[in-house]
Formats: sequence, C-alpha cells, structure tokens
Amino acid sequence: MPIITLLTDFGYRDEYVGLMKGVILSINPTVTLVDITHAIDSQDILQAAYAIHSAYRYFPAGSVHLIVVDPGVGTGRSLLALEMKKQFFVAPDNGVLTLLFGEHDETRLVRLSNADYFWETVSRTFHGRDIIAPVGAHLSQGTDLYQLGDAISPAEAVRLKDIEPQRADTGEITGTIVSVDHFGNLISNIHHQMLTQIEQFTADNRVIIRIGSHVIPGICRTYADVPPNKALGLIGSRGYLEIAVNKGNAARRLNVGKGDTVQVKI
Amino acid sequence: MPIITLLTDFGYRDEYVGLMKGVILSINPTVTLVDITHAIDSQDILQAAYAIHSAYRYFPAGSVHLIVVDPGVGTGRSLLALEMKKQFFVAPDNGVLTLLFGEHDETRLVRLSNADYFWETVSRTFHGRDIIAPVGAHLSQGTDLYQLGDAISPAEAVRLKDIEPQRADTGEITGTIVSVDHFGNLISNIHHQMLTQIEQFTADNRVIIRIGSHVIPGICRTYADVPPNKALGLIGSRGYLEIAVNKGNAARRLNVGKGDTVQVKI
Amino acid sequence: MPIITLLTDFGYRDEYVGLMKGVILSINPTVTLVDITHAIDSQDILQAAYAIHSAYRYFPAGSVHLIVVDPGVGTGRSLLALEMKKQFFVAPDNGVLTLLFGEHDETRLVRLSNADYFWETVSRTFHGRDIIAPVGAHLSQGTDLYQLGDAISPAEAVRLKDIEPQRADTGEITGTIVSVDHFGNLISNIHHQMLTQIEQFTADNRVIIRIGSHVIPGICRTYADVPPNKALGLIGSRGYLEIAVNKGNAARRLNVGKGDTVQVKI
Repeated sequence: MPIITLLTDFGYRDEYVGLMKGVILSINPTVTLVDITHAIDSQDILQAAYAIHSAYRYFPAGSVHLIVVDPGVGTGRSLLALEMKKQFFVAPDNGVLTLLFGEHDETRLVRLSNADYFWETVSRTFHGRDIIAPVGAHLSQGTDLYQLGDAISPAEAVRLKDIEPQRADTGEITGTIVSVDHFGNLISNIHHQMLTQIEQFTADNRVIIRIGSHVIPGICRTYADVPPNKALGLIGSRGYLEIAVNKGNAARRLNVGKGDTVQVKI
Repeated sequence: MPIITLLTDFGYRDEYVGLMKGVILSINPTVTLVDITHAIDSQDILQAAYAIHSAYRYFPAGSVHLIVVDPGVGTGRSLLALEMKKQFFVAPDNGVLTLLFGEHDETRLVRLSNADYFWETVSRTFHGRDIIAPVGAHLSQGTDLYQLGDAISPAEAVRLKDIEPQRADTGEITGTIVSVDHFGNLISNIHHQMLTQIEQFTADNRVIIRIGSHVIPGICRTYADVPPNKALGLIGSRGYLEIAVNKGNAARRLNVGKGDTVQVKI
Repeated sequence: MPIITLLTDFGYRDEYVGLMKGVILSINPTVTLVDITHAIDSQDILQAAYAIHSAYRYFPAGSVHLIVVDPGVGTGRSLLALEMKKQFFVAPDNGVLTLLFGEHDETRLVRLSNADYFWETVSRTFHGRDIIAPVGAHLSQGTDLYQLGDAISPAEAVRLKDIEPQRADTGEITGTIVSVDHFGNLISNIHHQMLTQIEQFTADNRVIIRIGSHVIPGICRTYADVPPNKALGLIGSRGYLEIAVNKGNAARRLNVGKGDTVQVKI
C-alpha cells in the first residue's frame, strides 16, 4: 500500500484534484491517497514550501509527495523529482522544494524528461494531471528515479531567496509570517532552534516579540498559559514560532497577516 | 481494511489533517481513512457531539472514530478512548462523547495514559497528531482498549450539560439549533422520537413550530411538500427536527442561526 | 480495489459525505474512495453535468461514479444507473447525465427500483446516503446493472435543454460560462472541436472573443502567452474554451460569472 500525498493550490471547488487521483489510480490502483491540503493561497510557492517541509516527516519511508503550485505552467519551467530520506517529491522547478534540499546531504534529483512516464497526452495548462500525477504513480510502483530524466545537482534547481530569518549582531531575529492557519494563528519562519538560547529567559519575561503594533512578552508553552483573548508567542506544532490568541483568532485580533514581519529580542 | 474516521475543527487550509493521516499510516498502512468533516465551527464541542453521534452508525463494526475538537489542548484535560457497539472513539475528555455514553449500556472507557501508544514525541499544542492519531491506529490494529490506560466509568467523564430539549407540562418542547448545514437547513436537538405523538396531528396542522419571529405549521415529509421559498419543518436525515426552506436557505431567509431556540407545540 | 467517486453539492461543512462513505464501506470494505468535488453550486445540475463529463475519462474501467445534486429528492423523480464505456454512473434522473448519454452508442441504463440494493431504511431527504451510495457499492462488487431495476432507453431519461452552444450562419459561436473555477478562470461550454477551423487563424489574430464588455483577440496556447494581468482565451484542461487572466482572476477582473454569454467569431 504505497502512499501518494497531494499538496496544491487548487482549492476544493473543481474536479482538478479528482482528475489527478484518477490518473494515479489508472496507473497504480493499490495506492493510498492522502490530501495534505489544497488550500495553499493561489501561486504562493513560499507557503507551499513550508507546508510540505512540515508534513513529509510524518509519512513512512517510500511515500511519494506531489506538489502542484505552478504559476509557470506552460512556460519553459521544468519539473523535478527528488529522492530524500527514502521519500519522493515531484514538483515544478520553481523553488517549492527549497527547504527540502537542505534536509539531507544524500539526495537524488532529476529534471523530468522521459515522456514514457507521462500521461498519454500532455496539455499546456495542467501538468499536475498530465505529468506530476503519472510520474508519482510510477515512483510509487518502484520506478527508479533516474529513469525519469537527467540527474542534476540541487544547486542547479531554482531556490527561493531570502526565506530565512535574519539575525542582527544584537541577537535580534527578524522573521516573516509565512502562513495564517484556520484558527488565525500566525506561523512564522523562525525555527525553534534559533530560539533555544532565548527560550531560557522565558521565566523572566526578558524575551520580547514585536508584531504589527503589538509587543508580546515571553514564549509560552501552550495556548492556555495566558488568559482567554490574550496574545502569546509559542513554538507551534510545526516547530516554528507562532503568534496566537488563547481561544481567539490572532490574525483578526492583532490585524496581522501573511508576509508581515515578526521580531524577537532578548 | 480497518476504517479510521476523522472529525475535527481544523478546516481545510492547513496540513494538520494530513499530518494525522501520515502518523496513522506510519503505524497501520492498511487502514482506510474517511473524513467525516473538518469544518466543525472552531471549538464547538456541542456541534461535534451531534455530528459524531449522527455519523458513527453508518460505519461497520470495528471502525475507529477520531474526534479532535480540543480547546483545552495543553491544559490538564485528559483524553479518552471509548468502545461501544463494537466501534471505537478517541477524543478529548471535554464532553464531545456525551451523546454516545447514552447509546448502550455495555461500554468500555479508558483515560489514555500509556505512552507506548503515543507518537515518539508529544507536543503541547497538537495532541490530535501526537496522541489521538497513533492511539487510533493501534486500536485499528487490534490493540485492546484496556492497554491504553486506566478504565473509568462514563460517570467520571466530562459531560455537556443542558443539551436535551425541555418538555413543559403543557407538552410544549423547547429545543436548540445545534448546527446549520451547507444548504442553510437549521438542525435542532429535538429527536423525532420526542415528536411521535405530535406527528399524528400533522394532517390537521395542529402542530406549530416557532423559530425566531416565525411560525411554521405542521411537520412535512420532504422539502417539496411546500412551495419553493416557503419554510417547513421536517425530520431531517439525522433523525432530528429540521427547519428548512424548499429550494432555499432557511438560515438566511429566517435570519436564524446556531444556538437559537425552536419551540414545538400541539 | 474498485474505485467509487463522489460528486455532490454537499459542501464540506457537514457529515453528509462521510455518511455516504460509511454506507459504501459497510457493503464493500475493499473500495477506494475518491472525491471529485463536493462544491458544485447548490442544486446546479448543469455545472455538475460538465464536471462529471470532464472527470470520468481519467478513471480506469470499472470505476463507479456517484453524482448527488438532487433538488428533487423526496418528490416523484426517479434515480438512474448508467453503464457506459465500462464505467458506471448513479444519479438522480434530473439531467445530470445528459452529456454522458451522447458519449457512446452502447450504453445500458436502468431506473432504480430493486430495494434489495438500497440501505435498510430509506429516508425522504437523503437518497444519496440511502440509495445512491449502497447501489454504487453493489455495482463495485460486480452486481449486474440490470439487477437494479428496469432497463430504459436514454431517450426516456430527463435531459438538460439548450446546453450546446449555438453556431450562427455567419460562423459566430455563442456559448455560456458553465463554471468559474477556484482561480477565477471562466470555463465555457464551447468544445475545442467547434473551434478547430477558427484556431487556424490564431496567428493572424482574426479570432475575436467577446465576453461581458470585453473583446479578447485570438486563442492562446497557455496563460503566459500574454503579459501578467492580461485576459486571454485558451483551450483549458477540460478541452473547452476558457477565458483566463495570466496570474490573475478573470471572473473578478472582467466582472463576468457563471451563466454569462461568450461569443467567438472569425
């Protein structure tokens, strides 16, 4: 029962995700399909990059992850297949795999070119269905990655720039909100490892988080560490700094959104 | 092919449900996963209680139902696993299982404590992924409920209060709208068995339903029993009194919503 | 691993789709379930007709497709099961199968009447759960179509009228927008085969598309054939003429929606 996951910006209105699943099952009827999400904001490659990076580690070895956030479909952009830590990723070469390239030294990467593994006809507007889905299905059946196209080094792939938080000489960290979740929690790109030193000061409330016009003292352990409707910072389930409001919606309450800056200092 | 269902208030934006599925499949790759819904209103335990109560009876024996509506995550609240009518339920001890406790005399119930069945690390903010999902996966593999923690009696679990409709001495029934569905149908907590006596009077239109500022005569058999855009009462597919508008949206048309009162009298 | 797909207007709020899946798995636990979409606009039979027509061809032989867009539930309308090109379709007799009847000469069609294949109780408001789901599950197990009810000819089934574009003597084609997708692309009912002759003139920009108050020259090959934020016409992934805006939302930008007219002339 190999697993194929799907992560797209297709939303839930249309038949597009269903078509990808039909193509996959036409090739490999034994696969187990899992939707990671289809609600990535339209064409938001950065948001998708963090989502797949957070998700893949919860899947077993051999899983195949298809990522279709593809504003460049029909242009000259190519498609990639990556093997890393015994998992597989198929996606456009637009930077959506950036965070995965750094995960492990031993990766295998190809630029897709072998049409034997594509759908019988390839449209100009839906490579998710016509290339990514069938390639993923073949990978789930054990096709070797190097059958799919020419090997390249990760250095040759497109990478998102400036996605890491900045640390000033003063120790202050400046990050970005990369995602606002269903509950209105503001998820930053500041990984908890950057905060290890700072976190020791929590008890003294010497850590200060600035976001929008708000100043939030300290990093809490869970939502209920502050009274209802109060803002807090905590390490969210992704492992990144998250700004939340206990039993409330931080995005609405703080009037902060995706792309906004968050600063942490001691 | 054991079945695991998921019922949450996570919405569809994020990777959270996908992570739970990854955890489940990492433990039991043969499971069939079914989403009941992930659109329970944020932290609405009552709505979730009615949804799982309506849903479980359509699943075969051996099914495992995971319910994650968990405003108390990270506090001292515990988690439960329930076995009832050969089905299994894993959920926070916050009242979401209230309606199930009354379904059958022979139930088995434990408070989860055996970390052997949890994920390798347990976060403070996402017990759905770290405890409920792995415990459910182990149950689907045949792990005995009593391996998971200490047995308790249902009387020791948290229960929602005042969730049953009230019947006055005059026979009038006062209930509540517990859910507004996608079509705008207003679903009450008045079970059809409470209306058995009343329903006999339908033909004479001697039953009166009051909701908001509206008075609706009689209980119909289906939507088309009234002209388009007219309001009606009927026993919905859940088995509860439902207020609808034929080919229309009752919530919008009657300006009534969740939590509002509905009265039925002869 | 037979496949059953679901296409409904139930949305994602409620447990309704989950109940259908529970019923299916109670009858055939080995089935693979695929959601085509549950976001068909409420009771929009035409939109659903195009969606299933676009989707079915990507599924393998033996797949069973359940379509529940059913404004007439509880009235005298009947339910149908169709076998066509080795695939199966179960739906209300309300025209939602119209486009499939024309796909192939050799079809088998029955009006459902054999309650042996229905759920044990049949409600008056949810035939998707009580009839369509169990009938689909039985078909996926190999039950012969003619066991389900009396054979009828497609001519006896309800058909949607006026769903084909009109071609004037001048060669001008007048079609309709039948769906607006998640990205705001405007999907028409003008099939690319109607445009074969016209498309040859593309290079000279002698084709003119009129939609709303807008005039769009030519038919492009992909979104990026025009600059960002410019409107274009192209043959979309469904095989129909689609009006899009490169890296933008055509519905919002052109202020055009479902049901609006689109004209193509040389």
